Amino acid sequence: MAKNITPRKENFPQWYQDVIKVGKLATHAPVKGCMIIQPNGYSIWESLQNYLDTKFKETGHRNAYFPLLIPESFITKEAEHVEGFAPELAMVTYAGGKELEEKYVIRPSSETIIGYAYAQWIQSYRDLPMLMNQWCSVMRWEKRTRLFLRTSEFLWQEGHTAHANAQEAQEETEKMLGIYKDFLENVCAIPVIDGAKPEHEKFPGADTTYTVEALMQDKKALQMGTSHNLGQNFSKAFGIQFSDQNNELQYAYTTSWGVSTRILGGLIMTHGDDDGIIIPPRLAPRPVVVIPIVKSEEQKEQILAYADNVVSVLKKQLGSLKVELDTQFHLSPGDRFFTWIQQGTPLRIEIGIKDIEKNIVVAVRRDTRKKDFIPIDELGTQIPDLLEDIQNALFEKARTFQEENTFYAENYEQFKEYIKQGGFVYAYWDGSSAVANQIQDETKATIRCLPVAQETKEGACVVSGKPTKIKALFAVAY
Amino acid sequence: MAKNITPRKENFPQWYQDVIKVGKLATHAPVKGCMIIQPNGYSIWESLQNYLDTKFKETGHRNAYFPLLIPESFITKEAEHVEGFAPELAMVTYAGGKELEEKYVIRPSSETIIGYAYAQWIQSYRDLPMLMNQWCSVMRWEKRTRLFLRTSEFLWQEGHTAHANAQEAQEETEKMLGIYKDFLENVCAIPVIDGAKPEHEKFPGADTTYTVEALMQDKKALQMGTSHNLGQNFSKAFGIQFSDQNNELQYAYTTSWGVSTRILGGLIMTHGDDDGIIIPPRLAPRPVVVIPIVKSEEQKEQILAYADNVVSVLKKQLGSLKVELDTQFHLSPGDRFFTWIQQGTPLRIEIGIKDIEKNIVVAVRRDTRKKDFIPIDELGTQIPDLLEDIQNALFEKARTFQEENTFYAENYEQFKEYIKQGGFVYAYWDGSSAVANQIQDETKATIRCLPVAQETKEGACVVSGKPTKIKALFAVAY
Repeated sequence: MAKNITPRKENFPQWYQDVIKVGKLATHAPVKGCMIIQPNGYSIWESLQNYLDTKFKETGHRNAYFPLLIPESFITKEAEHVEGFAPELAMVTYAGGKELEEKYVIRPSSETIIGYAYAQWIQSYRDLPMLMNQWCSVMRWEKRTRLFLRTSEFLWQEGHTAHANAQEAQEETEKMLGIYKDFLENVCAIPVIDGAKPEHEKFPGADTTYTVEALMQDKKALQMGTSHNLGQNFSKAFGIQFSDQNNELQYAYTTSWGVSTRILGGLIMTHGDDDGIIIPPRLAPRPVVVIPIVKSEEQKEQILAYADNVVSVLKKQLGSLKVELDTQFHLSPGDRFFTWIQQGTPLRIEIGIKDIEKNIVVAVRRDTRKKDFIPIDELGTQIPDLLEDIQNALFEKARTFQEENTFYAENYEQFKEYIKQGGFVYAYWDGSSAVANQIQDETKATIRCLPVAQETKEGACVVSGKPTKIKALFAVAY
Repeated sequence: MAKNITPRKENFPQWYQDVIKVGKLATHAPVKGCMIIQPNGYSIWESLQNYLDTKFKETGHRNAYFPLLIPESFITKEAEHVEGFAPELAMVTYAGGKELEEKYVIRPSSETIIGYAYAQWIQSYRDLPMLMNQWCSVMRWEKRTRLFLRTSEFLWQEGHTAHANAQEAQEETEKMLGIYKDFLENVCAIPVIDGAKPEHEKFPGADTTYTVEALMQDKKALQMGTSHNLGQNFSKAFGIQFSDQNNELQYAYTTSWGVSTRILGGLIMTHGDDDGIIIPPRLAPRPVVVIPIVKSEEQKEQILAYADNVVSVLKKQLGSLKVELDTQFHLSPGDRFFTWIQQGTPLRIEIGIKDIEKNIVVAVRRDTRKKDFIPIDELGTQIPDLLEDIQNALFEKARTFQEENTFYAENYEQFKEYIKQGGFVYAYWDGSSAVANQIQDETKATIRCLPVAQETKEGACVVSGKPTKIKALFAVAY
């Protein structure tokens, strides 16, 4: 058991901090609420970028870059948008040696400046759909921050699209949410519930916000990504108009969607154990580490040659950046293993002099610690299979956990009981913000979403008793 | 000839603006001195990122992310650094609804905040070398701005490394300059001269700054990238110390190196013609476009099927994102060709009904406009060969231009004559900033670098007549 990590049962928030520290994933920056993402953390982000960027391009989106700074007057053009973001804005008031005439805001999100640009670029229906994405950092001045989960500056991607009609915008909003769900479940091995946010929880300026919600090991929910149908709100605020096929001027329909470095927090809290993070193989920047164990100088040459061969076979199979050779010979074997355990490397391969005699390697899984003895000539098939097993086992474990901690409350007493023990709780809700607020005040639970896969049967609201068809998903959330 | 582009001979700066506009590469943002990089421009940047990022990783560097904001007190810790950057800083003074106690600077470069982090992370010689890079935007409030060449916000990568001794730091500085030179010449097809900056032109806080300099078609020089040996300046300012093998505390030696979106400006001004940008095939995000030309509805099905086959053969050969199919059937063929010409696509393939009868395609080079008639079953070899030809021809043309506009001045009269007609001018320089300043005042020329490949023979300074071994490269520069 790791001595430098507080056990989850003892103090989950402290465990989370410890895992990030020992895994060298990120540290607090000397700037209030901001973080430094270290190479171990950033390489997971790059792996996420790589996967999602390909999906965005396959679905016709192109990347662009819009300015970091937004004139203050832009932010105020969409009424709900400014109301939502005003308390969190960071302002540039002084630049190039003098006070600025108009203040600039560091982007909290780019709907406004992209709305301005789209209004210039879009003239005719032939310019639609306009499908763009940008990878960047955004700034939202947060009071209470936690590495990856809530920081004043964070990295994200923000997709922004414009369409000729409401239906296409809705299809886009759902398609991108689907890409997030697929990525989270099949690459990150994090099961999620997808649905719409209730009116009072939507993005400032959106008609509808869709979300994917996951359940962490402390039984709190984490929002993993959102996709917004912005209707004509921003196109009216910024004048995004086009001539349609009948040569009539119409306002475009826009969407925006994003995921952020928060996913790294979700990854830690979904799969981590008391020894640190566990990265699912498909997401892991380096899924395999090869560790030659040399007990005397005489063995060294032979063991290293054998290890080099293993590395080159695996690189051919998995990709040249996917396999790492550990040469930290100044550390004990145990300490070397622990370095990789705490960095979450899904599979480590140990090679000692006895393994060479038997023509095998010892493969040790990060998740179960199970050892497999693999003949050298079966490496090319067995290692990829093992990685797939780990991937599936992580998802299955997380799915079972979610299932075992999902409840259906018939009445408010039961609801409160379930919320107290933690997890997802489904309950009928009459659709009023009064009830949602009462529940939040009394239990800290919020509506995570109105799940896509909900029943349409009528029932009684758990608080008001009013008949309703809305079954909402509640949880205490990050 | 393009009607929407001013010819180079008439007005080169206007030509540059026009090329960017019609190629949809970038536009001015509604934020002073900042730009919006459009998908056509950004995809070239992504192509550059892809190539360089691989090289950085192959040479052992890992990416990380450091905060956008830097406490004002950090910037002032290295005396030359603050002096160099102070007039260009943008300051955040207000955030989260109130005035900040300590102001933050938007990073103009990250030596200071990375110096702070390295001081925490580096304890022992075993932690060295520390090799990191970050892709981000930086902000330097510029008075006179020009898209890509000089903007208040620009995208770049900044590498930051720390080493145990001076020699390793120097090797790193030179290695990274070498990677830039190789990339610029072999991928961007831009010939460059590499060398050291004179003392008065180096990066604020560096011991030595190395640069790669290119010559634009208007015979002005453009600095394309820099690599700095920072010595122990930042390690002393930020306390980056390590225990060496004898357990003695030493200051580390650091380096930093970067290239920016300025390269896109250099690309335009090196290869562009009066019809727009020309992107070298190895850098081009989409080197080939296939344009089916349909003259009647009856032909459509047959031509599209033939074109689809051509596209799929080429995608197999070049990569699935490297080939575009043009379906802008609402435009005339000429207008469709021009769209791609103005976006700089190196090779277009035209397919009409007669080509199908002959079982060929017509390939038209962007650089020479030369047409090649290529049998359909030779596509897989002839198209890649043609792209290589274009790549080599662009480099050869730029190299010849540079050669024809490089002069060796024996005396100051000759020097002034050469500078007046434009180009690179080599001349003996006595090493004094007095002479450098006089030359700049009288001719606008600056020392671009002290080339690596210079002679060691002694000569007389073109201004002072003093004996010197320094032969400097002068030019009027952007």
